[in-house]
Amino acid sequence: MAAETYLVTGATGFIGAAVARALAAAGHEVHGVGRGGRGAGAGVTPHACDLLDAASVQALIDHVRPTHLVHCAWDVTHNVYWTSPANFDWLAASVALLKAFQAAGGRRAVGVGTCAEYAASGTILHETGSPLVPATPYGRCKLSLFHAFEAARLMGLSTAWGRLFFPYGPGDGERRFLPALARAMRAGDAFDMSSGAQKLDFIHIDDVGAAFARLVESDVTRAVNIANGEGVTLREVALRAAEALGRDPALLRMGAIAARATDPPSLVADVSRLRDEVGFLPQVPWRQGVARFVAGSDAAQPA
Amino acid sequence: MAAETYLVTGATGFIGAAVARALAAAGHEVHGVGRGGRGAGAGVTPHACDLLDAASVQALIDHVRPTHLVHCAWDVTHNVYWTSPANFDWLAASVALLKAFQAAGGRRAVGVGTCAEYAASGTILHETGSPLVPATPYGRCKLSLFHAFEAARLMGLSTAWGRLFFPYGPGDGERRFLPALARAMRAGDAFDMSSGAQKLDFIHIDDVGAAFARLVESDVTRAVNIANGEGVTLREVALRAAEALGRDPALLRMGAIAARATDPPSLVADVSRLRDEVGFLPQVPWRQGVARFVAGSDAAQPA
Repeated sequence: MAAETYLVTGATGFIGAAVARALAAAGHEVHGVGRGGRGAGAGVTPHACDLLDAASVQALIDHVRPTHLVHCAWDVTHNVYWTSPANFDWLAASVALLKAFQAAGGRRAVGVGTCAEYAASGTILHETGSPLVPATPYGRCKLSLFHAFEAARLMGLSTAWGRLFFPYGPGDGERRFLPALARAMRAGDAFDMSSGAQKLDFIHIDDVGAAFARLVESDVTRAVNIANGEGVTLREVALRAAEALGRDPALLRMGAIAARATDPPSLVADVSRLRDEVGFLPQVPWRQGVARFVAGSDAAQPA
Repeated sequence: MAAETYLVTGATGFIGAAVARALAAAGHEVHGVGRGGRGAGAGVTPHACDLLDAASVQALIDHVRPTHLVHCAWDVTHNVYWTSPANFDWLAASVALLKAFQAAGGRRAVGVGTCAEYAASGTILHETGSPLVPATPYGRCKLSLFHAFEAARLMGLSTAWGRLFFPYGPGDGERRFLPALARAMRAGDAFDMSSGAQKLDFIHIDDVGAAFARLVESDVTRAVNIANGEGVTLREVALRAAEALGRDPALLRMGAIAARATDPPSLVADVSRLRDEVGFLPQVPWRQGVARFVAGSDAAQPA
């Protein structure tokens, strides 16, 4: 078999950096593309490339000649990204990237999907058994890209699509739930949150990186949920964080923020494909992962 | 209400020309974009634009300022288009067009989908009740674009998606089934075809144009099947063509060509949305339409 060359897009972002780390740790030759050509972590060769520019993408592909692609890049500007027209830019650019990769002899491509592709149902979400009716533009554009990956598969490229649930851990955006909660509580401030009744499937970022690494190394095709397979309420997570920080749980003002109309009561994955076909089991139990992360005892990774 | 300006892409093609004609006949201001800036029919203002070039698309939108868009353009090179990488170019370009249209104040967009978006099932195909599992790259890329239209709808644009079944009539490509059959039989030649057992939902091109015109004029959203709602075997169609041409049906060599593995036994639409919500009923019965077309008594339309 010819040498394998892995290309990770979004390699300076939360997801992409974890994927690139996991691939480098497994001994692969890893190339990373991120914003502004910043470093992409140890063992990852950084490249400057504007993925929204077709000529720049072609030059990157011609230079790196990747055999394997993990496409993590997307605009996920906090809150805004759910409804941003930038979703169209990333959808179109992702399709162009996929085509350029395949045309240049790429062998295997994995895309980063989202649990937001599923219809809100309250049931355990299965890759093919659960209806795919995204309630948001972000979810729709990711589902749209999933079908482009399926088209590439039908044209002979080995492709898979990791539907990511709720990642957390070092490198997470400061405005996201756990970092914001931890910052407020450390300062002794009250933290406004929703009722906390929503049951979500959290997965530690190290497990996310390792799961995508195993997925791209495998020959498993189509959609695969990337999750723990265990539903935990936001309330439980917040209380665990307060406990780990040694703060009064009364600082958590549950119900202060209204839930979004599009928020389903639960988003929990069936992980049988990840476990049985990819052969991956998450290693970080949520109680331990949340405590470590909010207490800051997780080593911060280069972002 | 502000004046309405309709833009039809692919307006020199089989579908787009019929849509542009129907909109012009209804008294609308219609602008057409087609290959090489060729004329797009009476009452349609032609524009030269390379839809695969973002700058060209933006200039077109800025110039025409359309309020309504019917996006018919796609690469449908006979046979090749089912698996062509050009599907990716048209998918990405279509997403960019949709975004530019919405950003410039567009109010309503209709896309041209296909029955190839459905899973092969043999049952009557319903827009939301039937599984969407396309077996071809073309079908996947069209389904991908459907979700982009849904994303635009969730961002506030009124959108709909016409899933077109089997159009036939004047302007159809010479290598497609009925034109090729008619040409062979007129010359007294044998015509090789599949077993003819496949049951398809044929719709005359005039009905296709009128259906899309009514759809874009309406405020009906999401997917709508564009079809007659009646299944006819290819065998029946071929025999009817032979009859209309006064030729020996023995010239039809049924079974000479193997069916493609991806061909489902039937592709017939549930047309209740088209009939009850759009308020459109096809006007051309297939026996009459097929006879008129192969006999050449349908007026050829400018292509």
